[in-house]
Amino acid sequence: MNPIDLRAQIQARMLEALPHPDQAVRAELAEYARMLRDYPERGGKMLRGMLLVYAGLAHGARLEQLLPVAAALELFQNWALIHDDIEDASEERRGRPALHRLYGMPLALNAGDALHARMWAMLIEARASYLVLDEFVRVVDLTAQGQHLEMSWMQTHRFDLTEQDYLLMCAQKAAYYTAVAPLRLGALSAGVEPPATYIEAGLNLGIGFQIVDDVLNLEGDPVKYGKEIAGDLWEGKRTLILLRWLSQASEPERIRAETLLRTPREAKHPEEVAWLHQRLRESGAVAYAQAEAERRLAAGLEALRPVLAELPDQEAAQTMLRLLESLVRREA
Amino acid sequence: MNPIDLRAQIQARMLEALPHPDQAVRAELAEYARMLRDYPERGGKMLRGMLLVYAGLAHGARLEQLLPVAAALELFQNWALIHDDIEDASEERRGRPALHRLYGMPLALNAGDALHARMWAMLIEARASYLVLDEFVRVVDLTAQGQHLEMSWMQTHRFDLTEQDYLLMCAQKAAYYTAVAPLRLGALSAGVEPPATYIEAGLNLGIGFQIVDDVLNLEGDPVKYGKEIAGDLWEGKRTLILLRWLSQASEPERIRAETLLRTPREAKHPEEVAWLHQRLRESGAVAYAQAEAERRLAAGLEALRPVLAELPDQEAAQTMLRLLESLVRREA
Repeated sequence: MNPIDLRAQIQARMLEALPHPDQAVRAELAEYARMLRDYPERGGKMLRGMLLVYAGLAHGARLEQLLPVAAALELFQNWALIHDDIEDASEERRGRPALHRLYGMPLALNAGDALHARMWAMLIEARASYLVLDEFVRVVDLTAQGQHLEMSWMQTHRFDLTEQDYLLMCAQKAAYYTAVAPLRLGALSAGVEPPATYIEAGLNLGIGFQIVDDVLNLEGDPVKYGKEIAGDLWEGKRTLILLRWLSQASEPERIRAETLLRTPREAKHPEEVAWLHQRLRESGAVAYAQAEAERRLAAGLEALRPVLAELPDQEAAQTMLRLLESLVRREA
Repeated sequence: MNPIDLRAQIQARMLEALPHPDQAVRAELAEYARMLRDYPERGGKMLRGMLLVYAGLAHGARLEQLLPVAAALELFQNWALIHDDIEDASEERRGRPALHRLYGMPLALNAGDALHARMWAMLIEARASYLVLDEFVRVVDLTAQGQHLEMSWMQTHRFDLTEQDYLLMCAQKAAYYTAVAPLRLGALSAGVEPPATYIEAGLNLGIGFQIVDDVLNLEGDPVKYGKEIAGDLWEGKRTLILLRWLSQASEPERIRAETLLRTPREAKHPEEVAWLHQRLRESGAVAYAQAEAERRLAAGLEALRPVLAELPDQEAAQTMLRLLESLVRREA
């Protein structure tokens, strides 16, 4: 199956599991259905779900077993984004206003909870194995811990962070569910104990993915990227790029940047954001982060290749490798 | 087992499943652990978990099978309350500031998500049956729908609601998880198909419980109740009491009350809240609601008695009946 058809199948599977406005018994519940379907209908790349399916096929599972698990992982992404957008007071998601900007915070928070439950429902109704369910528990546990780390740094205005701090946060918040979990869930869905390599290699690839996300946030094409360019600066996010630049900046520039990042979004001056944006780009910190992402991509792929070469379906394994490369080498 | 010991066992089981600050590898994650444990440590009545255990024992299940399911239902209550308190901008919970007042909204929202995942983890790690998992899916689905109904009425300033509207919202938002789900989960944990009576009888009892909650919010003892007295008026909640009063109020009083309820919490005048509080109490609307709760309690118990009389453990069945009565006849 080619990636474009697969993506459409995962999205269709996700939407089938959600309430439909036409079946709602009241106008309010039609709105509820529209809210649950909103982010899933906007699409997204569905790289994680696709990665999971190719990993599972490579291990010998059938597509029909894999689709609900892949759709559940994409539902994870969708409910987590609804809640992230509230937590970060984000303006946009996938090129449109964030859900809480359209419907208000209380209804959007609740829709995120409902979508979270639909994720478990997808797995439970498909009678996914307890080992698959255990892995989803790990996904949500780790992501919530990483999210707590990042948000507590922002709330307490901490900038005394090392690259190791960033990497721990990034591994928990993004890398595990982006690359480790899809690989492991593919194997688990095939009834196979996941190779140990999947953890370290997946973390490298997932961290590479997140670093590229941070780069695109500063340097991406606004149309392809789909989120607010420099949104991370408006929101005061700690990224590898920022931490690298802070560690090398002059004292006055460091103080100027930290003052800006500590200021609440609505009180930030656009000229100051533009100044920091420009400094990060011209200082070499973006290039440093891009090189780090490439290094992690190479290390992850190198570790995976010999393991994947042993798997029963080599065509799926090759497609999966190409998809993993595209996690890091992308424009959106 | 007596209810006091059982309550302690359910709480202990809940807390065992949560991260502990002493085991955290970083200070930020110790804070995360404290946040997840905060509401569960505050206690609460745990009536739902206790009801589930007695129902399960009555059906012949063992305590050890029932405790994780009961603890999971109490975890449901706890994460839902964290998110409710954010959605409603509540000040207090169980006699202390709400979690988002202590830690800020973003961290509290995330802690609620983490606790939601811990609910599923509790069930999955105990290898609860898929039928039990299916019932938890229903619990979260229905509660989220009921919550959407209530919040969308508040957000759109709707007061053109009938008692039937209230009853639908109340059945979905509160009654199902308060009484239907504990009865059904008790039976399902014993490997028994739940008697059909549990649905209608549980809805009557659960709606009775919620109506009493609305009464206590206006007339409760502030110490025993543990939440802000008249908080429902500050938050603009639609209750049976309010809808009854509005349907009988004079035009000027109705307009005055609706204007107050539409005003955001922070802009409300305390004297206006006190006026409406007094009008509801002296008009007979509170007494009307109290009588409706009593009627539903009697109907629910009457429907249950013949079914419970057939169950293998009659001592547990009797304790369960007493507990169901206390759902409606209570001061906190």
